[in-house]
Amino acid sequence: MLENIDKIKIKNADLPQLSALCEEARQIIISTVYKNGGHLSSNLGSVELTVALHKVFNFPEDKVIFDVGHQCYTHKLLSGRLGDFSTLRQKNGLSGFPKREESEYDCYNTGHAGTSVSAALGIAKARDIAGKDFNVIAVIGDGSFNNGLVYEAFNSLRLLNSKILVILNDNGMSISPTVGSMHEYLEILSETAEQKEKRDKHAKIFERFGFKYEGVYDGNDIGQIVEKLSEVKEMLKTQSVILHILTKKGKGYEFCEDNPEATHGISISGSSNSSTEYSQILGQTLSSLAENDKRIVAVTAAMTTSLGLGDFFEKYPERSVDVGICEEHATVLCASMATEGLKPYYAVYSTFLQRSFDEIVLDICSQDLPVTLCIDRAGISGSDGETHQGVFDLSFLSFIPNLTIAVPKDIKEFEEMLKFSAKFEHPLAIRYPREGKRVFQRQSKIVCGKWEYLNGNDGKYAIIASGERAVTLALAAAQILEKDSIKVTVINARFVKPLDEKMLNELQSKRIITVEDNMLLGGLGSLINNYYAEQKVAVKNFAYGDKFIPQGGVDELMTDGGVSCQAIVEYIKNENR
Amino acid sequence: MLENIDKIKIKNADLPQLSALCEEARQIIISTVYKNGGHLSSNLGSVELTVALHKVFNFPEDKVIFDVGHQCYTHKLLSGRLGDFSTLRQKNGLSGFPKREESEYDCYNTGHAGTSVSAALGIAKARDIAGKDFNVIAVIGDGSFNNGLVYEAFNSLRLLNSKILVILNDNGMSISPTVGSMHEYLEILSETAEQKEKRDKHAKIFERFGFKYEGVYDGNDIGQIVEKLSEVKEMLKTQSVILHILTKKGKGYEFCEDNPEATHGISISGSSNSSTEYSQILGQTLSSLAENDKRIVAVTAAMTTSLGLGDFFEKYPERSVDVGICEEHATVLCASMATEGLKPYYAVYSTFLQRSFDEIVLDICSQDLPVTLCIDRAGISGSDGETHQGVFDLSFLSFIPNLTIAVPKDIKEFEEMLKFSAKFEHPLAIRYPREGKRVFQRQSKIVCGKWEYLNGNDGKYAIIASGERAVTLALAAAQILEKDSIKVTVINARFVKPLDEKMLNELQSKRIITVEDNMLLGGLGSLINNYYAEQKVAVKNFAYGDKFIPQGGVDELMTDGGVSCQAIVEYIKNENR
Repeated sequence: MLENIDKIKIKNADLPQLSALCEEARQIIISTVYKNGGHLSSNLGSVELTVALHKVFNFPEDKVIFDVGHQCYTHKLLSGRLGDFSTLRQKNGLSGFPKREESEYDCYNTGHAGTSVSAALGIAKARDIAGKDFNVIAVIGDGSFNNGLVYEAFNSLRLLNSKILVILNDNGMSISPTVGSMHEYLEILSETAEQKEKRDKHAKIFERFGFKYEGVYDGNDIGQIVEKLSEVKEMLKTQSVILHILTKKGKGYEFCEDNPEATHGISISGSSNSSTEYSQILGQTLSSLAENDKRIVAVTAAMTTSLGLGDFFEKYPERSVDVGICEEHATVLCASMATEGLKPYYAVYSTFLQRSFDEIVLDICSQDLPVTLCIDRAGISGSDGETHQGVFDLSFLSFIPNLTIAVPKDIKEFEEMLKFSAKFEHPLAIRYPREGKRVFQRQSKIVCGKWEYLNGNDGKYAIIASGERAVTLALAAAQILEKDSIKVTVINARFVKPLDEKMLNELQSKRIITVEDNMLLGGLGSLINNYYAEQKVAVKNFAYGDKFIPQGGVDELMTDGGVSCQAIVEYIKNENR
Repeated sequence: MLENIDKIKIKNADLPQLSALCEEARQIIISTVYKNGGHLSSNLGSVELTVALHKVFNFPEDKVIFDVGHQCYTHKLLSGRLGDFSTLRQKNGLSGFPKREESEYDCYNTGHAGTSVSAALGIAKARDIAGKDFNVIAVIGDGSFNNGLVYEAFNSLRLLNSKILVILNDNGMSISPTVGSMHEYLEILSETAEQKEKRDKHAKIFERFGFKYEGVYDGNDIGQIVEKLSEVKEMLKTQSVILHILTKKGKGYEFCEDNPEATHGISISGSSNSSTEYSQILGQTLSSLAENDKRIVAVTAAMTTSLGLGDFFEKYPERSVDVGICEEHATVLCASMATEGLKPYYAVYSTFLQRSFDEIVLDICSQDLPVTLCIDRAGISGSDGETHQGVFDLSFLSFIPNLTIAVPKDIKEFEEMLKFSAKFEHPLAIRYPREGKRVFQRQSKIVCGKWEYLNGNDGKYAIIASGERAVTLALAAAQILEKDSIKVTVINARFVKPLDEKMLNELQSKRIITVEDNMLLGGLGSLINNYYAEQKVAVKNFAYGDKFIPQGGVDELMTDGGVSCQAIVEYIKNENR
């Protein structure tokens, strides 16, 4: 049925047909995600809701914004993208997130939590200014609901005086289980759903903000949700509505229902070979350090397990905090705990750290506090695309005074850096990719701002590389060039800040090349260009250019971005021609 | 009395003595702010509260965090800083904000809104981990209360299970009058203060988050507030409390009470001579453009008047939004309105734009939407110090793909850039300082990415300068050097991004110098260093080095930061010796 579904067919479908459609969508999602990777449980949980939305509303005239966007697969299947669905998350294929560039049915791109209500309000406000008439819907999970942005948007609903529908898709999860008082409050609402009077009293909060509250309904019951959405659509003519539904993350697939955190995101590329995740090293090392150092505390924003800190949290519950998807709060919490003598570690994905920028500058760095940022998924992260690449962190961190930035060349060095960090009494950022693929033979003592030669120092060329991926490329290039008798010295720039000025001075007579897994602007290459600016030293930078990096495999995207062994080799060979 | 006040004396003071102390503090604040500039109304409104805090609590063992920090003067006067108070906001003098470096009575530095509750929680959590026993207090205004960070902190109160006192200092202002549903809600609480039962019902929201709500009390009545704080101190032994007090912004000084927005911040340096503020030009030009272009909307986050948009908001109320101190929401709102064909202008101070970083990257730039960021108070802003200098904006914007960055050399060019922006269909940032001090003779058509020669192109040296301050310094240096027969070409780099590559190629044979009012890393100088990296072109950069810039006068801080006419002249003269 999905194959030849269109707007009219779905409008005319009866309940059994809609159920069949759900089942079909679910099967396609499962089989595709197991092939291509992607967000499984969140998409499975929201199938009925999405089918019902398409039954009741009129897309693309009506607009739906999916918060984070990791629940938009069914929407894609229902809006003419079934044929391309096998390309999901592949290079040049369908995005795993809503993309305006992809379809007029996607009205707003998402990727980070909490933007949907603001975006719905902006679109609704624009509609009202233009005197148009359509519905605007934000679909948001209870995890995102913890984010401060949502509160800011709620706070301005009456002010903007534009009507929207917010569907609160409550499954109790924010990758990790949802935490906090708002979550407890949502539970109370669910528990009292059958006692209308009591429930209405509890629901007052939403009315304060100008919403009519409707809840709690079973979001996996296609009949119930179609009926309720039809009612709500009428209400929207006169008021904004928040519709609270309960769904089961992973619905319809027992393994996912039982393991919603583990099956939130299914990774294909990461599941192969004998690599070790950096997150494992973080967890092990921090746990072991914390045994003797009672000052160590760990803070996360809703993805404790994937950051490797599950065991730490179990072992040291009193020194562990998962604040939910509240990156700003997590950052201030770390800074303030540090003022009282604690040693906080804030573990976070590179892309989500962007939310903490102001607090890193002011709360951590301007106060020069010993907080360590453990930045996972740094560099190109792959199939999630533009919104999730970790290629900006060096750029938005490198100019912040008082901050030291370390980049391990492998998991072994990462372990040593963590030990180093425990004694380091200033702001420190350590960035690393997901997977550690090899351990290099050479290991030397970590000294702040000191780099290391990896293969002698007698090359005509010097490649200064930062991080496992870049160091690997540089060494591979050196090996290839050696066959042509071109000697290349490879340097592990394990601190991007401060630079190893002594070594930079030594290198000045060589032809210098930089390699990194970050944007050029603001990254290692820029810092080195600045260092040499007054001298007439030429530097060739291998780093990403000034554009957003789409989805794809890590290696292919690095190559497309000009950061590859081949590019380095060709450049040097050309110079020697 | 203030002169020889100490902890014991204030503990033993009776009410008349405390009142006298308040009066004395108030007079000192008024006379000092009129000499040195500073935050007047917010400090006057919180005198009684602060005296009462010192009477009831035991500082520095107990900790108080002032949100934003613009109400901490009385606290400074009561904690041994009366003698230095005449140096307030001056170079090397007392900070206008809490500063840990300054006194053990300042436990946490603030400057941007909404961090106090998070910080209080972090300090309280650290206290509990260490098994210590003291009170932690956050003092927060109703303006900051709109910020999402506060909600994130509230959401984790039960989770962290650490007891804090939040004093909600409600004066109805967020520089501009406070807006939004939370504000309306606080008004309801105030109105029902006398009807305990009704009030308690209304106050349920705070209880949801784990606070005992106490309110509403008169925060300018020293007797009432001392009594209430004593009660609350007892309660804190078993629970977290939110104490809601009403204060009058500008209390005790009629002119301030009547003009709370205008007297929020008193500026000394800005009040002299015949300069024009860039904000005036923004207001006039945008109003005039909006007359014919119905797509133009203006968005602010709580400081509409000081951004120059008071008239615009009056003239086009349906196309104006002040969302309160919610910089992230403001950014998403702009992006989403742009998806529907509107042309949003988000006007904001440089320092506060830091809060929008992630949303600028993803919501505006990755979607390539025609939002214009009007970045006021860019560059060194002066006496507010570290937390308010606008010296990072180029650094955190320049590496974002799809973003164009314009920097006018004077108010006339700013006007032309705004006209240019109305037809520009991509993300655009325009940065400018507060004051326009001169208008240059040469004015040429704005073309994206095109620079202009200001004094011919036949110099041996080329100074590439960006923004009014830098261009002024460069031209002054050129004039001085001309007397020594050293010819210097000055270029107005009115776009920092994209660079004028054609002109950079032309300049390659000259000795190149860059000047800007921003950090070197990530600023104009870095971009130019990157451009020339592969050529052996030496570039001398005048920009701020890798440290936070303290308070002081704009000119003296620029000079201290190495960006001065004298430094440029000396550098070039030395080269010619």
